[in-house]
Amino acid sequence: MPTARQKLVVRCLMMSVDGFAAGLHQRLEQPFGDNTEGFTDWMFATRSGNEMLGLEGGEGGADDDYVAHSFDNIGATILGRHMFGVSRGPWTDDGWKGWWGPNPPYHAPTFVLTHHPRDPIPMEGGTTFHFATEGIDDALERAFASADGKDVRLMGGATTVRQYLSAGLVDELHIALVPMLIGSGERVFPESSPPPGYVCVEHISTPAITHLRFERR
Amino acid sequence: MPTARQKLVVRCLMMSVDGFAAGLHQRLEQPFGDNTEGFTDWMFATRSGNEMLGLEGGEGGADDDYVAHSFDNIGATILGRHMFGVSRGPWTDDGWKGWWGPNPPYHAPTFVLTHHPRDPIPMEGGTTFHFATEGIDDALERAFASADGKDVRLMGGATTVRQYLSAGLVDELHIALVPMLIGSGERVFPESSPPPGYVCVEHISTPAITHLRFERR
Repeated sequence: MPTARQKLVVRCLMMSVDGFAAGLHQRLEQPFGDNTEGFTDWMFATRSGNEMLGLEGGEGGADDDYVAHSFDNIGATILGRHMFGVSRGPWTDDGWKGWWGPNPPYHAPTFVLTHHPRDPIPMEGGTTFHFATEGIDDALERAFASADGKDVRLMGGATTVRQYLSAGLVDELHIALVPMLIGSGERVFPESSPPPGYVCVEHISTPAITHLRFERR
Repeated sequence: MPTARQKLVVRCLMMSVDGFAAGLHQRLEQPFGDNTEGFTDWMFATRSGNEMLGLEGGEGGADDDYVAHSFDNIGATILGRHMFGVSRGPWTDDGWKGWWGPNPPYHAPTFVLTHHPRDPIPMEGGTTFHFATEGIDDALERAFASADGKDVRLMGGATTVRQYLSAGLVDELHIALVPMLIGSGERVFPESSPPPGYVCVEHISTPAITHLRFERR
């Protein structure tokens, strides 16, 4: 039997109303940069958002459902270097292994886009960070190949998502629209992209955010 | 008694999830440009949206309420030339007086931003189109002066709103977020703007769109 085509999906991508997934000046004490106070509150108000980080607390409800199902049928993930950490340029021996502690929430092969080679880092819980230096197409190909037939989740950040959107490679896009304005930063959507052909298949607001899920037809 | 300061307000500004208020290639038969099919459906589903254009039909509800109150306490309006019509450059004798017929929905002094002078056009119902050639600050000053102490509504299009946002002149911003992607066109938000200082004071979804209203604090 033929298997369904593997998809590249974006889920729970936080975006401000002015279109930014992060502000300027990302730094250790403010991972999302300037003017982003409260940006992630909705996520930490959910039970699943806390669970993923090994924390307790949080509520159920629609926001929680989206977070809880955000890794359904995901066999590999891709993320940009800026989402992996704040360092830039050639890797150093600083011991940085991502923001997420010894057991990251990916639990699958995870491809970090970078211009600088680095050996893979196996983590607890099934995550291995691979450093993909050959561009977005190559990273996607490797992610599909390692996903055991499942889909690949594109985690972010904004620059990485924008590149994949520009290349027309994103099959599903779920935006968690946070009702705030950031002013300056990293845009999710390219200035100009191919006629998108996306249809909105889910559109609901909770008290905290608006969920918008698009599928390509 | 001191009167409340006059405000510059944006209401019911339609924006796609990728941040565009219009697509490319605005033209007579497609006023919002490419890839905007269905963009205005929510408006024509409201009773007030139809009434403003002298049409019948449409429903009540939250979308209708926003449209019905979109001219509350408005004494003058501002719009960009591209919103006034599709012609560019020096004005000709083509007889164009806007998209809205003899009785436009503004019912107040209305300032059209343009580089090209033209005599005012009085219309039925209280609208007079004035052609403002001295830039956005001057147009706003004239609009405030002619608004009889009331607020000024900035109608659009995207380029005009973006200019006023960049200049930090917008006091209230109500986005009617349409759950679609347009891909390319005119962005509402500048690439980079001053720290915004806006607070979201209303955030609701209807089946058709999401309303997000911001006030500057």
